[in-house]
Amino acid sequence: MAPLRVTCLGAGTIGASWAALFLSRGAYVALYDPEPERLIQANAIIAAAYDDIRALHPECAECDWSKLHMTNMLSEACQSSDWVQENAPDRLEVKHALLREVEGFVDKETPIASSTTALLASEIQNGMSYPARVIVGHPFNPPHLIPLVEVVAGELTDPALIQRARSFYEALGKEVVVPLKEARGHIANRLNAALFREVVHMVASGIATVEEIDRAMVHGPGLRWAFLGPNLVYHLGGGEGGYAHYLTHLGPSQETRWRELGEAELSESVRKDLVQGLEKALVHLPYDARAYRDAGLISLLKLKASLKTQR
Amino acid sequence: MAPLRVTCLGAGTIGASWAALFLSRGAYVALYDPEPERLIQANAIIAAAYDDIRALHPECAECDWSKLHMTNMLSEACQSSDWVQENAPDRLEVKHALLREVEGFVDKETPIASSTTALLASEIQNGMSYPARVIVGHPFNPPHLIPLVEVVAGELTDPALIQRARSFYEALGKEVVVPLKEARGHIANRLNAALFREVVHMVASGIATVEEIDRAMVHGPGLRWAFLGPNLVYHLGGGEGGYAHYLTHLGPSQETRWRELGEAELSESVRKDLVQGLEKALVHLPYDARAYRDAGLISLLKLKASLKTQR
Repeated sequence: MAPLRVTCLGAGTIGASWAALFLSRGAYVALYDPEPERLIQANAIIAAAYDDIRALHPECAECDWSKLHMTNMLSEACQSSDWVQENAPDRLEVKHALLREVEGFVDKETPIASSTTALLASEIQNGMSYPARVIVGHPFNPPHLIPLVEVVAGELTDPALIQRARSFYEALGKEVVVPLKEARGHIANRLNAALFREVVHMVASGIATVEEIDRAMVHGPGLRWAFLGPNLVYHLGGGEGGYAHYLTHLGPSQETRWRELGEAELSESVRKDLVQGLEKALVHLPYDARAYRDAGLISLLKLKASLKTQR
Repeated sequence: MAPLRVTCLGAGTIGASWAALFLSRGAYVALYDPEPERLIQANAIIAAAYDDIRALHPECAECDWSKLHMTNMLSEACQSSDWVQENAPDRLEVKHALLREVEGFVDKETPIASSTTALLASEIQNGMSYPARVIVGHPFNPPHLIPLVEVVAGELTDPALIQRARSFYEALGKEVVVPLKEARGHIANRLNAALFREVVHMVASGIATVEEIDRAMVHGPGLRWAFLGPNLVYHLGGGEGGYAHYLTHLGPSQETRWRELGEAELSESVRKDLVQGLEKALVHLPYDARAYRDAGLISLLKLKASLKTQR
């Protein structure tokens, strides 16, 4: 089978990270951005991401830069494309304008997957000539390291495309999660949003500082969630009786806490408190946060792979 | 300095896990439970927890069982106690009855720290003879592995006890987090509750299955939260402009998602859906969940310690 030709629309952090991943799996990648400046910066992002991928997968070949074509000409980027991964700014009018133009350059069978966080496939495909080939393929930052991809069909998406997208991303080594229906934020960013709302509420109402909230996470629940999802955590919390026992005996305590959780609003003064709180926390960090995250992620993913083969 | 004498009230999972940790740091431990049955079962929990501690800290000496005294006589358990760690069922009337009795057996200076999740120090100390020595010292399950301890004073707590509790837990190798004020669930279990409410809402409203929610967590956000708290995650998400840029540009998208998050109720039918969903997920798990969690936690904590010394 000939290697795939993947079109990456948008050369920001997400688009460039996807491009590195596609390259590492042998695909030809056309990376499009209307801003030449961003294409130039993307080179360094791809190179660094590729290093991370090789650190995680030492068997991966060196980057074949000849397979990468960067361009600010959309028609060029779309030529003979087998898969379009769209990473434009997360605003509907921007995606609509871009994708309607893309439709003029790609075959009507070519899937268009959107990395959108906040939009729905149904919204994006609305008004397109061939809406059936539009689907959400939402990665998690940074996409070249984090395994999760959420695949979500819109109302007009060809149902067969769900399986095709699953196969496409799994062949890239990703873990594909498919919600039962569309919802803003899909699954993972709804969890993120729910948790973050309470973070903002705690800072805004003086319950805790930004630094102590972050410390509570990384030394507490954040350690378990790398291995077990929230349901499984409470299943173990239920002891011999499992999840049913937990829900019956500690469910009321959860409901009591739910009633005391707060609402939040990112007003200017709250945003200021958050930023000032973070600045204080940064002073105490003994490491560069981004390097620490990526070194940590690579080691953690290796660790999880080794635990899986042990049992 | 003579080794500490620690009284552990309650020999369930939390009490026994604390006991193993105290023993591993050379303390004399008196473990009290009114149920002899539970004391007998605690032996196995302590032995297994101690093995985990030695796996994490190979320099730790073998367990000196002669330092452990198990008893269903409260007066015996409290004799010459330097520190009382209370792990009774999380109901106010149970804690009140127990602690008022404890006050008859310990010196009035002896701190009484409660492992409570859902109660406040102010509620627990209310009506005690020496309320100033009551504080919350809330661990995270399993306490012998997870570093986090949340220390929270009540209205009548001696303010100096906060620092004393911090020193006590830090000497045990714990990471101490101190909220600015009392709130139900402290910090970490408010984050847990906020996230879990949306889990329940997604299952109840048919957005996603239990299994896909758990998979989204462990392959997505759960990986980052082992290293970076939610504020720092978004600071990195803001790129060069950091948290301020993130909040200004993506804050509105968060607020949109907040408006679409749901309420939840653990009705009988929702509990049934959760349990059935979990049972389906368990079939696909290639490992024993508890063993996987503990093996994973030990390796992850070692990994985090090694990353810290590298930079």
